Amino acid sequence: MIDFRPVLFIIGILVSTIAVAMFVPAAADMTVGNDEWQVFAASAALTLFIGIMMVVMNRSERRNLSLRQAFILTTLSWLVMPAVAALPLYFGNLGLSYTDAFFEAMSGLTTTGSTVLVGLDYGMPGMLLWRALLQWLGGIGIIAMAVAVLPLLQVGGMQLFRMESSDTSDKVMPRAAQIVTGISVVYVVLTLICALLYWSFGMTGFDAVAHAMTTIATGGFSTHDASIGFFHDARIDLTATLFMIIGSLPFVLYLQALRGRPGNLMADSQVRWFLTIVALSIGAVSFWLLDSSDESSLHLVRAAAFNVVSIITGTGYATADFNAWGPFPAAIIFFLMFVGGCAGSTTCGMKVFRFQVLHATALCQMRRLLQPHGVFIPYYNNRAIPEEVTTSVLGFFFLYGIAFALLAIGLGLCGLDFITATSGAATAISNVGPGLGPTIGPAGSFAPLPDGAKWLLSFGILLSRLELFTVLVLFLPSFWRN
Amino acid sequence: MIDFRPVLFIIGILVSTIAVAMFVPAAADMTVGNDEWQVFAASAALTLFIGIMMVVMNRSERRNLSLRQAFILTTLSWLVMPAVAALPLYFGNLGLSYTDAFFEAMSGLTTTGSTVLVGLDYGMPGMLLWRALLQWLGGIGIIAMAVAVLPLLQVGGMQLFRMESSDTSDKVMPRAAQIVTGISVVYVVLTLICALLYWSFGMTGFDAVAHAMTTIATGGFSTHDASIGFFHDARIDLTATLFMIIGSLPFVLYLQALRGRPGNLMADSQVRWFLTIVALSIGAVSFWLLDSSDESSLHLVRAAAFNVVSIITGTGYATADFNAWGPFPAAIIFFLMFVGGCAGSTTCGMKVFRFQVLHATALCQMRRLLQPHGVFIPYYNNRAIPEEVTTSVLGFFFLYGIAFALLAIGLGLCGLDFITATSGAATAISNVGPGLGPTIGPAGSFAPLPDGAKWLLSFGILLSRLELFTVLVLFLPSFWRN
Repeated sequence: MIDFRPVLFIIGILVSTIAVAMFVPAAADMTVGNDEWQVFAASAALTLFIGIMMVVMNRSERRNLSLRQAFILTTLSWLVMPAVAALPLYFGNLGLSYTDAFFEAMSGLTTTGSTVLVGLDYGMPGMLLWRALLQWLGGIGIIAMAVAVLPLLQVGGMQLFRMESSDTSDKVMPRAAQIVTGISVVYVVLTLICALLYWSFGMTGFDAVAHAMTTIATGGFSTHDASIGFFHDARIDLTATLFMIIGSLPFVLYLQALRGRPGNLMADSQVRWFLTIVALSIGAVSFWLLDSSDESSLHLVRAAAFNVVSIITGTGYATADFNAWGPFPAAIIFFLMFVGGCAGSTTCGMKVFRFQVLHATALCQMRRLLQPHGVFIPYYNNRAIPEEVTTSVLGFFFLYGIAFALLAIGLGLCGLDFITATSGAATAISNVGPGLGPTIGPAGSFAPLPDGAKWLLSFGILLSRLELFTVLVLFLPSFWRN
Repeated sequence: MIDFRPVLFIIGILVSTIAVAMFVPAAADMTVGNDEWQVFAASAALTLFIGIMMVVMNRSERRNLSLRQAFILTTLSWLVMPAVAALPLYFGNLGLSYTDAFFEAMSGLTTTGSTVLVGLDYGMPGMLLWRALLQWLGGIGIIAMAVAVLPLLQVGGMQLFRMESSDTSDKVMPRAAQIVTGISVVYVVLTLICALLYWSFGMTGFDAVAHAMTTIATGGFSTHDASIGFFHDARIDLTATLFMIIGSLPFVLYLQALRGRPGNLMADSQVRWFLTIVALSIGAVSFWLLDSSDESSLHLVRAAAFNVVSIITGTGYATADFNAWGPFPAAIIFFLMFVGGCAGSTTCGMKVFRFQVLHATALCQMRRLLQPHGVFIPYYNNRAIPEEVTTSVLGFFFLYGIAFALLAIGLGLCGLDFITATSGAATAISNVGPGLGPTIGPAGSFAPLPDGAKWLLSFGILLSRLELFTVLVLFLPSFWRN
């Protein structure tokens, strides 16, 4: 039998953290004299009670988790956190069902950014702040997980980023906790810089902070229905584009840059690939728009850059309804959803390093076709890729494809039309936010979908956020035996 | 320098074969007193001239092809054959451009079944016979290639089917040529049985032969715009369903069955997986149709079975416009396009054995997550899968995904809408035939697409028919060096 106590103990701590965070929107509502502060205060009290009970009841001497416990902890914590984070959304005066509240919280904490809410412009500051806060906390949680947990679990090729795998002389810092602390400081500072820029370019202080939090987390929740498009400001668009890109690069490299190795950032092949893909996509979409629209070229390139970056980074902000751009940009945007940013960032999707590993492997295979007895070794970042990493990444790609197909078919079963079902599956499994088509496109919301579809989408979001394997391994009968 | 002479010599023989085949429709047109026999006769003469010239000018002493020559031969022959097979379509009185004629011939020879023609019901018998003949010849050509050529080229995991890899005691027949001859006999006999059944169930002799040829080849060209739906006959639907399935199983196993080992057919895990996927898909689609339609349940199950089998086998016949069936069947049908039948059959798509290899690999990986130091070996058909087969298959899956995405984006650039572009890319890269949506759906045709889109689709068809690697390897600079 697996001992659940150490797992529940840690989840208790996480739940208590969420509870403490609820006091922030409570304070915000209270300062503007909004009665809804009571909802947050009550939810915080209830959540804190649950969290503390879990901690108290599951104290034990043993601190080291087994591998199985670590898997259960990872999946269970990402189920329990949205379940409690949904409470203020459910108890508030938005009229949300628990399904809607859970979907919104899951979408928030995983930095997906799909929303069931409309009428954000008239929303209470507490509620808007809570959504932004969820993404911001989720963002740093994901980086911490990618740096400290996933490489140890060895899921989907993440073992490439194990700290031991780097040269001993090259060790930036000895322990994961230290790295996570360092990254958190970088994260806070970047958020502040982003907020200051937004504010200096004309956002209110509240909007600036809320958007800075969801920009750096590549989350995409906004305080306006028109998203960043609400502000109609080239400088704000540019700031958002820049900070979405910053949020998509490996945060460990920022730490290295601060420690005197700024060259590492541009020397990293994942960073180079990512920026190249972004540049090519912006170029292709701009080319199409310039050819088919009469608007000023600067305006069109700005729109192309913003929306391409928003999609590939999985942020999900919008400044334009890219559905109306025509078939070529729609197809590019659809496939960009799957790409994602770099490992070790706040982005989701398949991530660029996996495409690099797959590309290197496919090239080696073609060379081997010509020289069946030659030895060809795929490289990543100038290092030979171990065989088990290759199969791990390839297996990830396969499961991703299967999960996408099953999710789209499931959404079809719920009655969603073809574009909504396929792009909904794509956006969920890549944690992007908006889909394509009139319902869930950038100008729409997920509210009209049936409850079944929302639970399916929530599951898809969870699956991809935890790199598939972490969740799927729990469904192996052998996991629970012995 | 690569010596092209032996390559052109063999292509000359293939071209001459095509030329000889053109006399069949010429004879058909002549017997019904149709002047178009002259088009076929002239095309045959021209093609025969080209073929014989190639043979004569490239005679040489050396018969053994190098690996590079084999790769060039495979791709080049599948480019030259449709180029000459298109001649009667171009010279005929159909008013086709050469682009349309080439697309139709490529679609025919590869047993894809996408068509640019409408008004088939009023077509000349010669032209209709030529299209059927192209698919029938293409079908046996594909099986021969899958049995004799691709395993040697080791592309995309096809080395699993190398004859040496089977137990020496288990060798069915010693040489590839013998096997191909045996399979050809089976192919002819099955075509005759299918034609007899069609004829006994009310088709004219001409329709019966034409449809039998395109059924066993899982090609899908029909002599009527309404495809098999024209006949409105349950027995014909059932016959077609059965023979499409027969055309999707490994033909080598039929040979083994005839040699006294019928058990091998059902013991083969690829066959079991394929039949299971077919049964589950028919069940799911029937379930949806029964729930949403008032027609008789037998009628609905028959329609579900026929169209599911038609899509997964890549045949592309239709008895109903499945676009109108709703989102759930549409999503299932979309993803079934990618699956395909068994290796060593006339079908295309990714093929079932690749899904088996991927599934076995993914399971092993999940087990390894729980026991990082355990040894887990994936199995296919009760044999351990060699590591290089696994990476080969996984690389194939990756390239398939990339090719699909680039093709869909390219079609978007040609101005096709989202559903037409994505389902067009899917249907081309899986050699299915019809796509989804009003233009290229089962009730439409590819004629309205711009020329650029037709060339793109032709390239996609070629790419997947030759298992991607065979074509892509030619684009490696190192292929042409030394």
